[in-house]
Amino acid sequence: MRILVLGGDGYLGWPTALHLSRAGYEVGVADNFARRGYDLEMGVDSLVPIASLHQRVDCWEDVSGKRLEAFIGDLTDESFVYDMVGSFRPDAVVHFAEHTQVNNVVGTLNVLYAIAEIDPSIHLVKLGTMGEYGTPNIDIEEGYIEITHRGRTDVLPFPKQPGSFYHLSKVHDSHNIAFCCRAWGLRSTDLNQGVVYGQSTPETTLHPDLATRFDYDAVFGTVLNRFVIQAAAGEPLTVYGKGGQTRGFLDIRDTLACIELAIRHPAKAGEFRVFNQFTESFSVSELAQMVSDAAGGAEIVHLEDPRVEAEEHYYRAAHTKLLDLGLMPFLLGDELLADLLSIARSHIGRLERGALEPKVRWRSTSSTITRRGRSKPEESSAERPV
Amino acid sequence: MRILVLGGDGYLGWPTALHLSRAGYEVGVADNFARRGYDLEMGVDSLVPIASLHQRVDCWEDVSGKRLEAFIGDLTDESFVYDMVGSFRPDAVVHFAEHTQVNNVVGTLNVLYAIAEIDPSIHLVKLGTMGEYGTPNIDIEEGYIEITHRGRTDVLPFPKQPGSFYHLSKVHDSHNIAFCCRAWGLRSTDLNQGVVYGQSTPETTLHPDLATRFDYDAVFGTVLNRFVIQAAAGEPLTVYGKGGQTRGFLDIRDTLACIELAIRHPAKAGEFRVFNQFTESFSVSELAQMVSDAAGGAEIVHLEDPRVEAEEHYYRAAHTKLLDLGLMPFLLGDELLADLLSIARSHIGRLERGALEPKVRWRSTSSTITRRGRSKPEESSAERPV
Repeated sequence: MRILVLGGDGYLGWPTALHLSRAGYEVGVADNFARRGYDLEMGVDSLVPIASLHQRVDCWEDVSGKRLEAFIGDLTDESFVYDMVGSFRPDAVVHFAEHTQVNNVVGTLNVLYAIAEIDPSIHLVKLGTMGEYGTPNIDIEEGYIEITHRGRTDVLPFPKQPGSFYHLSKVHDSHNIAFCCRAWGLRSTDLNQGVVYGQSTPETTLHPDLATRFDYDAVFGTVLNRFVIQAAAGEPLTVYGKGGQTRGFLDIRDTLACIELAIRHPAKAGEFRVFNQFTESFSVSELAQMVSDAAGGAEIVHLEDPRVEAEEHYYRAAHTKLLDLGLMPFLLGDELLADLLSIARSHIGRLERGALEPKVRWRSTSSTITRRGRSKPEESSAERPV
Repeated sequence: MRILVLGGDGYLGWPTALHLSRAGYEVGVADNFARRGYDLEMGVDSLVPIASLHQRVDCWEDVSGKRLEAFIGDLTDESFVYDMVGSFRPDAVVHFAEHTQVNNVVGTLNVLYAIAEIDPSIHLVKLGTMGEYGTPNIDIEEGYIEITHRGRTDVLPFPKQPGSFYHLSKVHDSHNIAFCCRAWGLRSTDLNQGVVYGQSTPETTLHPDLATRFDYDAVFGTVLNRFVIQAAAGEPLTVYGKGGQTRGFLDIRDTLACIELAIRHPAKAGEFRVFNQFTESFSVSELAQMVSDAAGGAEIVHLEDPRVEAEEHYYRAAHTKLLDLGLMPFLLGDELLADLLSIARSHIGRLERGALEPKVRWRSTSSTITRRGRSKPEESSAERPV
């Protein structure tokens, strides 16, 4: 089987490409290096140094004997997308390549049109986010909910209350893809992923040039990775507000396993299938305490919450469909935390301490573009209106 | 009060501008003439001839003594939007200017950013569509629904199942606007409008140069107007499929009244308010029969449904909030139908018979861009991917 990984140079896209290549799939990776561009814009870099895509691809060939086919280009470029899908001829497309509203909406529409015109049987595996749901006061189901209302019953898309422009863009794409499944008979799996932690996978640890990103800045750094780096640096762990914000989490290795499970068990023609892709729920305070304990008692401080979100709320979300397909989760424990702390400590000389502070204003328009639930900094005025 | 009408040169935007001007508001109109461009692209024109925007504005000044301020430009042009909002300083923005996904998402984001930065108290009255809801098997409520699930209850956005790329784009904007109300404290009313019929308003009939569009083509012509023109031309009324497709409808004069009611009773700061803007529900077959009767027995034929939609389905949608604000509806009756037939007959020499036929393929990608629930023709390949 042939798998095309869009956003294949990123934090999760790269390890996914390696995992699938090792598992025996023929893998292509596509990227426009937008993420590396944001590093330059923000003046910050992954704590663990990462090789260029060309170096990575060559290194993987040396290590594994397998060659990844690389496509450099932008999904908003329609002819790039058509030529890539037409020449690579994937059986499945794994779509990580999303960040802003125009990029997502246009890029994903280009991917949908290319699939529909070139081969409608291609399975689109799109990485969504649990953030599409927001924090409703009822249990979150996997994509759909049965509603009984005034004596009648229907199964309808679960209502969405995304909390940032980034999450909104994922909601737009979910609606567009669902329509294309309904109207054109395409097949798609939407993986509404929780917050990912971890940095090592069985493949990325085979050579330093295969390492993936380890981010800690206020825009792209996910919370657990950021706490670990703060602890390694001897800085206090910064909790926003009360720390009661609860979300679903998963180990990076489970991300790879979930994507392979979705590929191995594809959606049916016409089906828009939604899986909630996380393994455990934690509050921010719980995570801070776990990292503090693992680091031998790091200080925890509470900052005023810069985001517009409930600091304490109900949160319970279903996540059984991937378990039903055979997922065996890595749960968060001392071993993972010790491994992450060790990685962080060995690269702590590369830390830019200023990048740990929250810089994004969420209550006014200066918060601009969001990604991974955080906003890009004010400097990115060029992209402000999207 | 100062009101800016975006899309003020269109079928509904123009009569709305006149209505508000006559009611005593200071009115500005903005348009990029995209709708007139589609006429050129499709080789078809409004059955009733329409004057240019400059002619219309001059004519209205002659007739009423009031001057509309005209802004010619595209909402995807951020500086155009900022300059317009900053110089006109509206109390409310009435937003009709939506057609495709990039235009809507980018244009509406520009409007939101301009409002937030220039004056967050500006009330955004956005024209949505009942088509955002699709045809669920439960009663449709006005924007939100109380859901009790596993013993807990919350009021959540009503789930959306839009049936075209046009309706999808309205869903995207609804989500973006709701977020800006939540995060930035903006105020907005989303008017989920049914299918509009009629062509005359008290203002447009004051002079031929004030007339608004009367469309019958397969892309932009709404169903009742199209039946009337078919009857006037002695052509059979063409029902798609069984004709059990049921939707909410309203008279063009009620559109104007609803918008004025929304403006006079603005949403509160931080509120994203949703009204379902229609007055009666009809099936397509019922409408065909009414027009046939009014025309003295016009033939009705059933064509294979070119759309992906249920030809028979449950449909019941709440629409009490505008009535509660004081709407006195014009219900569909013989007088309106006789008036419309008379208008159509007096311009029937302008009819392009070929434009009455459905040309859009809904089950494959050649159906391209959709607007008002219909697709743009295949020729519009330039905009295909959006």
